[in-house]
Amino acid sequence: MAVLTARELAPQERLDWLRLSRTEGVGPVSFYALLRRFGSAAAAIDALPQLSRPAKPATRRAAEAELAAIAWLGGRAICWGEPAYPPALAAVEDAPPVLTMLGRTELLQAPVVAVVGARNASANGRRLARELAAGLGEAGVVVASGMARGIDAAAHLGALDKGSVAVVAGGADIVYPEENRGLYDALAQQGAVIAELPLGTEPQARHFPRRNRIISGMSLGVVVVEAAAKSGSLITTRFALEQGREVFAVPGSPLDPRCRGCNDLLRNGATLTETAADILTQLGPLLQDRPPVRLRPPRQPRLALAAAAAPPPANGAIGEDDGLGLLVEKLSPTPVAVDELVRQCQMSAASVATLLLELELAGRIERHPGNLVSLR
Amino acid sequence: MAVLTARELAPQERLDWLRLSRTEGVGPVSFYALLRRFGSAAAAIDALPQLSRPAKPATRRAAEAELAAIAWLGGRAICWGEPAYPPALAAVEDAPPVLTMLGRTELLQAPVVAVVGARNASANGRRLARELAAGLGEAGVVVASGMARGIDAAAHLGALDKGSVAVVAGGADIVYPEENRGLYDALAQQGAVIAELPLGTEPQARHFPRRNRIISGMSLGVVVVEAAAKSGSLITTRFALEQGREVFAVPGSPLDPRCRGCNDLLRNGATLTETAADILTQLGPLLQDRPPVRLRPPRQPRLALAAAAAPPPANGAIGEDDGLGLLVEKLSPTPVAVDELVRQCQMSAASVATLLLELELAGRIERHPGNLVSLR
Repeated sequence: MAVLTARELAPQERLDWLRLSRTEGVGPVSFYALLRRFGSAAAAIDALPQLSRPAKPATRRAAEAELAAIAWLGGRAICWGEPAYPPALAAVEDAPPVLTMLGRTELLQAPVVAVVGARNASANGRRLARELAAGLGEAGVVVASGMARGIDAAAHLGALDKGSVAVVAGGADIVYPEENRGLYDALAQQGAVIAELPLGTEPQARHFPRRNRIISGMSLGVVVVEAAAKSGSLITTRFALEQGREVFAVPGSPLDPRCRGCNDLLRNGATLTETAADILTQLGPLLQDRPPVRLRPPRQPRLALAAAAAPPPANGAIGEDDGLGLLVEKLSPTPVAVDELVRQCQMSAASVATLLLELELAGRIERHPGNLVSLR
Repeated sequence: MAVLTARELAPQERLDWLRLSRTEGVGPVSFYALLRRFGSAAAAIDALPQLSRPAKPATRRAAEAELAAIAWLGGRAICWGEPAYPPALAAVEDAPPVLTMLGRTELLQAPVVAVVGARNASANGRRLARELAAGLGEAGVVVASGMARGIDAAAHLGALDKGSVAVVAGGADIVYPEENRGLYDALAQQGAVIAELPLGTEPQARHFPRRNRIISGMSLGVVVVEAAAKSGSLITTRFALEQGREVFAVPGSPLDPRCRGCNDLLRNGATLTETAADILTQLGPLLQDRPPVRLRPPRQPRLALAAAAAPPPANGAIGEDDGLGLLVEKLSPTPVAVDELVRQCQMSAASVATLLLELELAGRIERHPGNLVSLR
């Protein structure tokens, strides 16, 4: 990997990094090799057509359009070596040269722990994921996961009001699975969404293992809550072990196939995890080495959501904690616009989004096209 | 502990051992100290009144009566150092000098593994205990437990047709808890029941930890299936560790308090156990050091049960495997005598007892005074 000082790239440099990284046939390992050989992304781009195996660099126009689209979404492109790049991930050999990111940049500077697991998780598994994530959030640890159904979604939800980062397999603007649109919106506003692949990329099966290496790579440890034998979560733990990260597993009944993978991990030395304290104790020394985290409260949404147009809450507005009853009162089986709810409840758009997400994951509301919701 | 050759004691010696061991104030440690100092139990008994802290030995008459009662029940008194004494238990410092035993003596010579756990076990926990015990039995391992409700009862049942030993806290003739009378009868016939305390002793709270040290002491390892924090099963594992035995624990959900103790054991290095293979693999070398076990098929009942009076089954009599349907056919909501069932089904009393036990634990039959049973 190239040795770079931790500095912001100039706009032209960032453009060159993006062009080189989007060039067909140039993966992370080639990218850093080219950077080392030619000294800069611009020099590498110039040299590409003359190489023994010549490559056609991505066009300047395409890179400019991608950066413009990222900016339009309120996001940013972060290059390896820049101060905003997740520090743990920067130490990984095949770290993505450029990350697309939506949401709160400062979350990437906090210590991160990944909480992952089965999509077909049990209700108890989802509850555990949520509680573990909430406990990590309380301790100033940001929770990373893959925004899948089941454990991932529950983990994001548990840490949402403290700090949660979704690493997605496709482009940062692509919601997958569609049923997690509410969660995606909340993460892009209150947490963060990061992606290695360009905007607009639909995730494919082969993308997921590469995504998983980012989840483990940016984290101090990976917690697996429920996982069948030979499941995707175990791929994440394999990356974690290769990257020198801690592996944690929640034990479960031998009669439940969804616990088989976790129990195997425990048999092979993973740290047995019942509560967030188990994780924090094990990571203790690593957490103490980190500079104190200055997590700002979530910003108002940057995305062009209808809710973003709502007025800021007046002083004494009802907060999230006691707003749930009020929100449910405003809901009915007839679909209503989310921004109408924001106005009626006198709550921030972010608070309403979070409460709606909770209701959605609890199966109490249904979403409809046009940002409408109704009680089930 | 006294160094003794492995030989049968003469009847007079056995009587003296029983007298000395039943003397008030003479626990196992004092017993072996007296034996070392005076060379024999008889000499120790003679010396007791002259000691600086004199003791009144148990009377010869009481010891004779106890031995007669044991014989009347078809049992035997086994002294430390005799060939029938459980070999693993003989190596424990405070091993009982005299054990009362009902059932199949040869079970005590097989390798033994204890399966213990919570009385208020979940249905899944009981199923696991039963499956683990059955798997151990298949591998020629005898299963020891404490005949308590829940995990203990399920473990005994799972291993009953191969070999199971109940270590009871009171006298060997005392059924506790009363609801396990069917299990007790089956164990005394097809398995074994052993006790440190004299016949007729009602178990008291203080007896259970001492009983637990026998369970772990006679075993190569202790498997805990479900156990709350600070439960009796954990006392057994503490003894097991002091005695150098392996400790196994079945993992479970952090949300279930009945799994807390097992998960704590796993955190502290117990072997994670999902199937009997996990236990057998870990014990592999210890099992190979043992002489091959010659387990005879269960004998006809020795106890003075009504069923024992039934005629032996004719050639071609229906066995246990295919007898369940027949037995259920003979049962009705009207209570019927067990020996009547034995006659009508043309099965051995032991087979009927086992099938009834299965039905009882499955909640399908009810027992009534006078050895009657009815369908629920």
